[in-house]
This record gives sequence, C-alpha cells and structure tokens, in this order.
Amino acid sequence: MKEIFSYDARLAAFKELIKKIEYLKYTLNSLVYWDKITYMPPKGIEYRTSVMSFLADEQYKLISGKEFAENVRYFRDNKKNDRVTDAMVRRICRNSKYISKVPEGEYRRYVELIARSEQIWETARKEKDFGVFKGHLEQIIDIFREFANFWGPSETPYDALLGYYEDGLTVAKVDEIVSELKPFLIDMIDQIKEAGELNKEPLLVPGVDRAGQEKLWTKILSRLGFSFEAGRIDVGAHPTILANSPADVRIVNSYREDELKPGIFNVLHSGGKGIYQQSIDEDLLGTFLAEPSSFAMEESIGRFYENIIGRSRGFWEYFYDDLCRTAPQMKKYTSQEIYRDANRVRPSLIRIEADELTYLLHIIIRYELEKDLINGSLSVEELQDAWEDKYKEYLGVVPGDDSQGILQDIHWAGGYVGYFPSYFVSNLAAAQIAAAIEKDCGSLDKLAAEGNFAVIKEWLTEHIFRFGAMYGTEELIEKATGKPLGSADYISCLRKKFSEVYKLHY
Amino acid sequence: MKEIFSYDARLAAFKELIKKIEYLKYTLNSLVYWDKITYMPPKGIEYRTSVMSFLADEQYKLISGKEFAENVRYFRDNKKNDRVTDAMVRRICRNSKYISKVPEGEYRRYVELIARSEQIWETARKEKDFGVFKGHLEQIIDIFREFANFWGPSETPYDALLGYYEDGLTVAKVDEIVSELKPFLIDMIDQIKEAGELNKEPLLVPGVDRAGQEKLWTKILSRLGFSFEAGRIDVGAHPTILANSPADVRIVNSYREDELKPGIFNVLHSGGKGIYQQSIDEDLLGTFLAEPSSFAMEESIGRFYENIIGRSRGFWEYFYDDLCRTAPQMKKYTSQEIYRDANRVRPSLIRIEADELTYLLHIIIRYELEKDLINGSLSVEELQDAWEDKYKEYLGVVPGDDSQGILQDIHWAGGYVGYFPSYFVSNLAAAQIAAAIEKDCGSLDKLAAEGNFAVIKEWLTEHIFRFGAMYGTEELIEKATGKPLGSADYISCLRKKFSEVYKLHY
Repeated sequence: MKEIFSYDARLAAFKELIKKIEYLKYTLNSLVYWDKITYMPPKGIEYRTSVMSFLADEQYKLISGKEFAENVRYFRDNKKNDRVTDAMVRRICRNSKYISKVPEGEYRRYVELIARSEQIWETARKEKDFGVFKGHLEQIIDIFREFANFWGPSETPYDALLGYYEDGLTVAKVDEIVSELKPFLIDMIDQIKEAGELNKEPLLVPGVDRAGQEKLWTKILSRLGFSFEAGRIDVGAHPTILANSPADVRIVNSYREDELKPGIFNVLHSGGKGIYQQSIDEDLLGTFLAEPSSFAMEESIGRFYENIIGRSRGFWEYFYDDLCRTAPQMKKYTSQEIYRDANRVRPSLIRIEADELTYLLHIIIRYELEKDLINGSLSVEELQDAWEDKYKEYLGVVPGDDSQGILQDIHWAGGYVGYFPSYFVSNLAAAQIAAAIEKDCGSLDKLAAEGNFAVIKEWLTEHIFRFGAMYGTEELIEKATGKPLGSADYISCLRKKFSEVYKLHY
Repeated sequence: MKEIFSYDARLAAFKELIKKIEYLKYTLNSLVYWDKITYMPPKGIEYRTSVMSFLADEQYKLISGKEFAENVRYFRDNKKNDRVTDAMVRRICRNSKYISKVPEGEYRRYVELIARSEQIWETARKEKDFGVFKGHLEQIIDIFREFANFWGPSETPYDALLGYYEDGLTVAKVDEIVSELKPFLIDMIDQIKEAGELNKEPLLVPGVDRAGQEKLWTKILSRLGFSFEAGRIDVGAHPTILANSPADVRIVNSYREDELKPGIFNVLHSGGKGIYQQSIDEDLLGTFLAEPSSFAMEESIGRFYENIIGRSRGFWEYFYDDLCRTAPQMKKYTSQEIYRDANRVRPSLIRIEADELTYLLHIIIRYELEKDLINGSLSVEELQDAWEDKYKEYLGVVPGDDSQGILQDIHWAGGYVGYFPSYFVSNLAAAQIAAAIEKDCGSLDKLAAEGNFAVIKEWLTEHIFRFGAMYGTEELIEKATGKPLGSADYISCLRKKFSEVYKLHY
C-alpha cells in the first residue's frame, strides 16, 4: 500500500484484494460445496473436508490481514459520498464485527465440525435415528452459544444469532410477530377445518421420472426469466442454490418420483432466488455487494415465486398445457382444481412440503426450540420430546420417525443456527413486495395467467435485485414498497386467497 | 521454520505446506477445471477464467516462496535414507530445474504466446487454413528452441524437450525404437492388405442414447475395478480424467450417439487411468507423489485397458450379453465378429480415430517432423509439404484439407512440444506390462473372458499403481516387468493378435 496515495488507486487496489476473497467465497466455496452435494463420490468426503477447511483458512487470512484492515480504515475515514464504496465499507464492518470477535482456533473448530456434521446428519436421517446425530448437534449448539457470547454477551444470547442473519432482528421483535401470526394462522386453519376443507385428499398425481420432471422445471424457470446460459438445475438431497457469480448460478433441486408438486415448488423457490442472483449488477463484483442483501431478502424472493406466483390461479392456468404434456393423466382435472390442490391445507410433519398456511407454524416451532436451546432452557437431550409436543399442540401431528421429525432440516448440521426466524421476515416481505408490484403493475394473478412474467422480473430487478447488497433488508423493503416491513400485507394476502379457495366468510 | 529443529518436525511442517499446494493443484484445479468442461453454464466462462488464473498464482506463490525453498534445501542436504522423502525431493528438484532455467521474461513471453495461440489454432482449424496459424507456430517453435538451449545446450536440442516430458528419453533412443517399429508396422499393414482385409467395412452398429451408453460404461468400468464410490463418469467434448485425490477421480467421457465404439474405447482408456489414480497409496498425499509417475506411465495404463484388454477376444466374449442388452440389434453378430471389428485396420488421416496398428505411424510422423523443426533441418514453411509426403509414404493417405492434416492436434498450439514421443514409451510399456502379467497370472485373454479383472488390477496395483510417482517411468517399468523398456513385447503382442484376427502367416 505504501506507494499508492490517490483515493482512486487505493480503491482499485482494494477491489483487487476483495476480488480474491470473492474467488474463494463465491466460486470456490460455492462450487466446491455444490459439487459436494451433487456429484462428489462418497469416498471423496474426507479429502473434500480438508480442502474446505483450507479454503476457509485462506479466506480468513485475507480478510483478517493487515492490508485489508488498513483499507477498511482508510475508506471508513475518507468518505467521498460514493454510494457503492460506502455501502461496501458498511457491509465489511458489519460482517467483520462477527468474524473478528471469534478466535481463529474456534472458527476452525467450527468449520471442521460443520464439514463433518452434514455427512453424519445425512446418515442419521437415512437410518431415521436422531441418536446418530445427537452428539454432533450438542457440539454445534455449544459452539453457537460460544459464538453468541463472543458476538454480544446478553441475557438473551439468541439475540446475537438473530442479528447475525438479520440486522436488528431480536427475540422481542420476533415474539411480537409470532404473537400476531400464531393466532391468525391457527384461526384460519380452524375455519378451514369447520368448512370441512382441511385434510382433503390431494389430487391423484401421477409419478413422472426425473428426466420428465427436469424438462418441466426447465420450461417453467425459463418462462419466469431464469437464464440457463448463466445457470443450471441439478439434483441433490436438499433444495438449495449456490452462486459462483451472477453469470453462474446453480440450483440444486430435490423432488419425488411419485409426485410432481414437491419438485415444482422447490424449483420455483430456488429458481426465484436464482433470478435474483442473476439480476444483480455485475459491476458490484469486487465490492462484496454482488449478492442478495440478506438471507431473509433472498428467501423472500424464493417465497414470492413459490407461493405468490406459483400458488396463484393464473400460474396454473398458464402452465396447464405444459403440466398435461409432462403428465397426460392430469388432463382429467381443470386448472382450477389443480390451483385448489396447490393450496390444499393439511397440517403435516415436513416443513418443506408444508402448505403456505401451516408453513410458518413449522417455523414458529423451530424458533421456539432454538431460542430455548441457545438461551439454555432446553437441552439437546430434551429436544426430541419438545419437538413432538409442539407439533402435537400447533399442528396436531406427531412424527412417526426421526427423519420426519427432528432430522428433516439440514440447517443445524450446516451451521445455520439463528437462521429460521429470518423466515418470518421473508414471508412478510414477500407479501409486502407482492402488494407493491400489484399497485404498480396490476394483478399478479392476471400477469401470471398471461405468462407476463417479464413485467414481474423487471419490477423486481428495478426495485430490488440490481442493488445486490447495497442496502440492508429493512431499508431495501421500505425503499421498494414505500413502507416499513409489517405483517399486514401477509395476513391480508393469505386471508384473501384462502377465503377465495375455501369460500370462508371474512 | 525457526523454532523447528528436528527432522521429523520439519518434515511434518513441509508436508503441511505441500498439502496446501496439492489442494490447489489436485482438488481445486481439477474440480474447477472439471466443472468448466462438464457443467459450467456458458456465461460462467469469464469469471471462471479469472478464478483459474488466481489459483495458478496462488500455487506459484507457495511453490516459489522462501519456506518452500528452505525446506527443499534442508531435505536435499539431510538425507536419512527415507525412500518417500528422498523421492519427493528428487521430484521437486527435477520439476523446478526446468522452471528455474528459463528467464522470467522469456517464460512470460511463452505464457502469453500460448494463451493466444490456442484460439488462433481453433480459428485456423475451423477455416481449414494452416496459413492462419503458421506465423504463430513459427514463434512457438522458436521459443521451444530457446527453451531447449536453456535446459541443456546440445547438438540435438530436441533431446532437452524429450527429457522434459520423460526423463532420459533422447533422440537416439527414440530413433532406435522408430527404426524397429516403422518397418514392422508398415509390413503388417501390407500383409493385411494382401490378405484383402484392409479397409473392410465396419459392422453396422446401432445408435444408442446417452443414458443407455452410460449404463454400459458404468457396467464395464465397475467390472474392471473402477470404484464408483471413489469416482464417477460425466460427459464432455473431449475425453479426459481429473483426480481430486485417489478417493475422488472424475472421468470425462466423449461419445457418439450414432456409434457405440468411440464411447466404449474412450471410457476404457480414461477408466484405466482412473483405476491407476484410485489405487495410488493415499499415504503419499502431502508429498507430491500421489499421482502417476509420468504422462507416459499414465498413458500406458490407458492404452493397456483400451487396447490390450478392450480389444481382446475375451473382453468381447465377457461383455457380449451386456452389449446386446444395451443394443439388442448387436445380437445378429457373434462376439468373434465384434472382436474382429474392434481390431479393424484402416489407414486414416486422424490420429485420435486411428486403430491400434496405424496409431504409432501417426506418432512417428509427428516425431520426425518435430525433431527436424527443433533441430533446425525443417522450417515451418516446409512443414505442410513434409506432412503430406509422410502421410502418403507411411499410410497411403493424403489430407483433403488442413483440418484433417497439420491442424488436427492441439498439442503445438497448447505448448506441448516434445510430448508426442512419450506415446512410444506408453504403447511399448503397455505391451511389456501385459507380458509381465501373463507370466505371473496366465493369459490376459482368458482372464478377460472369465471376467477375472480383479487379478489384473491387483497385479498392477502391487507392481505399479500404489507407488504413485515414487519412481521414474524407466525405473518403475524395469522394477515391474523385470527388464528395461523395449519394443519386443509390443511387436510380438501386435503380431500375435493381428495374425490371429486376419489369419496372417507369421
């Protein structure tokens, strides 16, 4: 840094350094991890684990090095009213706050633990035996209790973990959201039950092989605006998305051979996130800002495409012919019947297969348990019973085995502790964004029926996608929708749809 | 390094450093490159190129750093009769000898020239016009003449280039091999011609879709001993193999939809190399020795599985039922007919499509021309005429255009000057290894007919594979086969097979 004096030259040099960190972060971590969950042969895991830990170390070295720190200090102290650079420095300081507070040895212990635990979780799930994973989960919870302590010692350690995923999110705020949502959701479900519409038999949907389903997914995502020149769909055990850059976005989908819906809704969810990633301004590469604003923001777009678009009447009208081409037996149903089926409400055991209405009850359960685990009022030993009790109480169902219960989510094994509550933010945000689009562009249902998905993608790109991580979630939502995040649109959106579907009296 | 004094502690630290370089070299370069040629969406190329250049830089930094040099010096000067460490240091010194003798500016000029020339070669090939590439080839030949001078000034500069790819290989040795092979090959081809068996029509082989072919490849490689727990097959434009570690070996196969043979022989070739990679002692990780001994050694195993196993009568007897399951129309042929078809001899223009007998004539042509170019007795200006003359003389065919002639191989454009002659070593070695196995385990043809491929893999693992790069090619072949590399077994192997196939009178 010694010979570089001008602001511009310093900025160029700093961006070169950031690009290197991004190579490790976006491409290598995404690609190496993507391969791990899609194509890696089983025996590759041991060496892969070492490689991932090496990569984490290299990232850590660059980001905790002297050159990086000097640059951050310089640009923090020499503001030139350059929006991108200011946002970059803000984001770096925000993230480094979390990294710098964790000692290096502790961080490495975490990376190695997580690298191993996903495999063990998978074995446990296959064997339907929580016992196989329990010891690992204890270590994970312990390490996150330590992290919470490093990040912000408090009487509610869980706050620190919430804040990691979503700035400003606290147990107090989430409790308030939960207090609005829980009674609303339970009441809606009760009304549907009273109307005799709960747990209706699903439509008899035929099995379709992988190649047939993949063709349909590709068709749908292409129409929605996902570019297969800059991305692809592969199959893995758990649906997710990894971006190597806005020009290389990998959807990993999961599906069932005997049913079409899971694959479609999973791909809508990840595909929505994929469209987001692909639409980020590429000029933001080299600033850490070429990524979604936050997990919650990214998830909100996933929920938007999965639920608001994918579970609309118009969507099923528009894709009716494609669906019937994939599965000719579907012709015996009308698109209206398929739309109703897509919105069938049925309290169930598996979160990712849950309908829109019961989904947040699954999240509420995870939130309440995680909060107690981290705050210390629940042990991993007691977790399984607590899980079953809550499912019985809120949803009236009890898991037959651990794979349908406590082992269904990869989150804890993957180190995502404190992540579930951001699903509240994302579901609320999806509904609020939908309301804003309708104000500007008219009925989403009508746009979907016309296949006019380009208008939707354009609005989202203009107001949200292109900015990458330049703004925080709250700021971006307020900027895009004209008001702070609240639960009003979410509640009225669900009330409107389910009243219509089930002819309820609101 | 300052606080570490004991040999063992120093060695452990050095191995940690080497492991990091291996992570970059084996896993990341292999995986990132593997993805590039298999699954990367087209728009990902720009960012991927930056990432690959970053990775190359990181490797270079570690391998040219002070810590690395100090360690090499220490272990070179403090030999403890530790076979693995001595082999490691020998290999490091051997490789760095070539890099360190080229001045930095010259090396950069070379890198930049090669970076441009592959593109220009591709254009030239598309336009079928050697004129487009000629000027670049002149520069490439010039630079390699300079390299030869840096590496070892001599009256036959080409020796230095041969030695780069294969220790101890010289023009004198290759000339001796060629003087034995050329008359033998030409005579065999003449005899086949006299017997009226040259250029026979191939069997009418049905087209089979990718999924069907993949199933057959998987079946064949599984039986041969390739572990799909530690490897996989994917599809790309050119057949190759990338190893992330012995436990994660990626075969990239290429095939034709309208013919079964190219996919099968390509997968046998790469699969053989894959079995080699998977069978290297994993304890050699962290020493640079967990890889095949040399290009030629790896290639010899590819040729062994492709030609000696894959073109044997026993192989086609054993896999006859599987073949007919994949393509039921094949039932109209006997396994004997299919075996004969696999050994059909037809002098042709394209090296990579050549049969076993004419293949080395293609290599001889390249060797003779390359030798004259580097030693100065042939100019690039005269090259095209010389190419045509030799094809006419040795194979009786003349290229219709440059894409079928002088522009068919990427080697020169890619900077692989001096590489072709290692194909002599690999083909000779394959036959010599086969003879040694037959001495210990009986007829390979019989073993193949019985599906007893495990015996073959065990012998190869015991005598060759497990050692990785601990020994040089010559040393390893002599150790494994009990005699120095020669052409006797190669000649008698081909004579025996083609006499049998074509009922020739030897």
